[in-house]
Amino acid sequence: MPEIRWDLITEERVIVATERSRRPHDFKKADSEPAPKPEFVPNCPFCVGNEAMTPPEVDAFREAGTAPNTPGWWVRVVPNKYPALAPEGELQPRANGIYTWADGVGVHEVIIETPKHSETPVVTSLSQWTEVMRMYQRRLTTLAQDHRLKTILIFRNEGKAAGASLEHPHAQLVGLTFVPPVLQRHIEGVSRYRSRHGKHPFEAIIEQEVREGVRVVNLTEQFLVYAPFASRVPYEVAIVPLEPMARFEAMPEEMTQAFAAVLQDTLQRLYRVLNDPPYNYMLFTAPSGYEGEFWWHLRIAPRLSIDAGFELGSGVGINITAPEDAAAYLRQAETPVSPN
Amino acid sequence: MPEIRWDLITEERVIVATERSRRPHDFKKADSEPAPKPEFVPNCPFCVGNEAMTPPEVDAFREAGTAPNTPGWWVRVVPNKYPALAPEGELQPRANGIYTWADGVGVHEVIIETPKHSETPVVTSLSQWTEVMRMYQRRLTTLAQDHRLKTILIFRNEGKAAGASLEHPHAQLVGLTFVPPVLQRHIEGVSRYRSRHGKHPFEAIIEQEVREGVRVVNLTEQFLVYAPFASRVPYEVAIVPLEPMARFEAMPEEMTQAFAAVLQDTLQRLYRVLNDPPYNYMLFTAPSGYEGEFWWHLRIAPRLSIDAGFELGSGVGINITAPEDAAAYLRQAETPVSPN
Repeated sequence: MPEIRWDLITEERVIVATERSRRPHDFKKADSEPAPKPEFVPNCPFCVGNEAMTPPEVDAFREAGTAPNTPGWWVRVVPNKYPALAPEGELQPRANGIYTWADGVGVHEVIIETPKHSETPVVTSLSQWTEVMRMYQRRLTTLAQDHRLKTILIFRNEGKAAGASLEHPHAQLVGLTFVPPVLQRHIEGVSRYRSRHGKHPFEAIIEQEVREGVRVVNLTEQFLVYAPFASRVPYEVAIVPLEPMARFEAMPEEMTQAFAAVLQDTLQRLYRVLNDPPYNYMLFTAPSGYEGEFWWHLRIAPRLSIDAGFELGSGVGINITAPEDAAAYLRQAETPVSPN
Repeated sequence: MPEIRWDLITEERVIVATERSRRPHDFKKADSEPAPKPEFVPNCPFCVGNEAMTPPEVDAFREAGTAPNTPGWWVRVVPNKYPALAPEGELQPRANGIYTWADGVGVHEVIIETPKHSETPVVTSLSQWTEVMRMYQRRLTTLAQDHRLKTILIFRNEGKAAGASLEHPHAQLVGLTFVPPVLQRHIEGVSRYRSRHGKHPFEAIIEQEVREGVRVVNLTEQFLVYAPFASRVPYEVAIVPLEPMARFEAMPEEMTQAFAAVLQDTLQRLYRVLNDPPYNYMLFTAPSGYEGEFWWHLRIAPRLSIDAGFELGSGVGINITAPEDAAAYLRQAETPVSPN
């Protein structure tokens, strides 16, 4: 019997159609491990040595004495070559008859996570991956200075089916002059839950998930990794800090390293169980200048199915894998993928 | 300069990133026409003669004297073999600790649009396509008798990238026991616009679009076909009747034929300009028992780009083709595709 499940925060419904349930194997692209990638690809704009192929860098972690846009970096940030938004323009909306529009003001950056084409998050060293997290924090902190930006969203597209056009490991950052609907609904849901139940929904979720265990993927001293009860897609995973914290960029040094470890471990589990699946992850941190209650978190959405007319026309997801099954497979996965 | 555009009804924003703008050619899968499909495919469950390969039919237009689940039909409706929802179950939501869930009660049907594998909406006769529209109406009317169903969504997935798992021309129908978020936001937006401007937003849209013409794809005596100002995806097209009408199923006979003609013409234009693109279309008719203001319409969303981390994490679309450009290409397309 299919189930309708309510998201605790947004109250939106998801259909979990267990009749169609699939084992991880059915989602796998191939039985064999993916082919190893070369360390350097001559025409890859993100490979070390090819710095001239990108717009000039806006930030980097690099060896002392090396010049911008030359080798010597280990994490590098550049403007997106095909930006969805532009840094300068008129913020004020204008009318076109009955319609409203404005200049597309905002920031669109690429965070190149390694000089090496082959150094994916799954195989990179923990120290390198921690540096990547530090760069996420540094960009969030730096861009918070631009008071036009209300929201800064960091996301990662892995694999063509997840919208990645370049293979070299990278994340993207978009700074928006407004709070977008997904974040707005989250904030409203948190506030509604707080007023009804006197606590943040993540407090209730952590309590029940840790007690029940069936949707837990991993539990560390500081983080819970779990398959949300109303997961919209198969093998969806959320990572939340166990204690409330509004901003990702406010994590102290050791906690950042602990988060890097838990995120890497989670990506390794997905890699193991689903054989290098395409996925998106999205980092939700408090909107700039927002003083209300917020609890930062990260959501990973593997791209194993395609939203079709039903999902587009209703806004309701059909998830063919029960979150409890997904969590069990991910919990049992062998990590690490390679020594690191 | 990219633009942010507001949807007139939902007030949600879309980014139109004209810097990345693409001509139709860049979206085409191949330069050549798609290979012709065979009229009969032995293992296709929707081909005539293979009726035993589907669950027993729930409705059909068929020749007098022919038995259900045998040849003789020209439009046939069967339950989905892998239903997202089940017809029987407990409607009352239940608690699982802090979470809420319910049995997945609803209806999930497949409308097989032709006995012939090769008879796509683009090449079929107008009389056959009108029969398909009549079957949409008949299912909407019949299922409205089931008072548990609040919403009946008919949608069509064309092509693998649009989520179609079977090639044989078909649409799907899902009956839901609730009003889903996309429809809810539409209804709220219409009501907000009405209270602010004293008219239905479609009245305002038709007025401005017909006057300006730049986003018009086709204008007939009874319908406007246009590229919405805040199109979320490239080559998005909406079809609305020029006069308000709450329910698709309430259209009189000749209007149904006129709609079939205008929908077929629109699909032919997309076929011509984008070389048989994958697409979804979604038919929005008034929720069952809903007495408020509604104006039925159909939305076509070609699947030329992939929603990635930004779209999933924000709910904001990035559209790389200006609706005005899309409309110009579609307006100039040569139709029909073949004599019909």
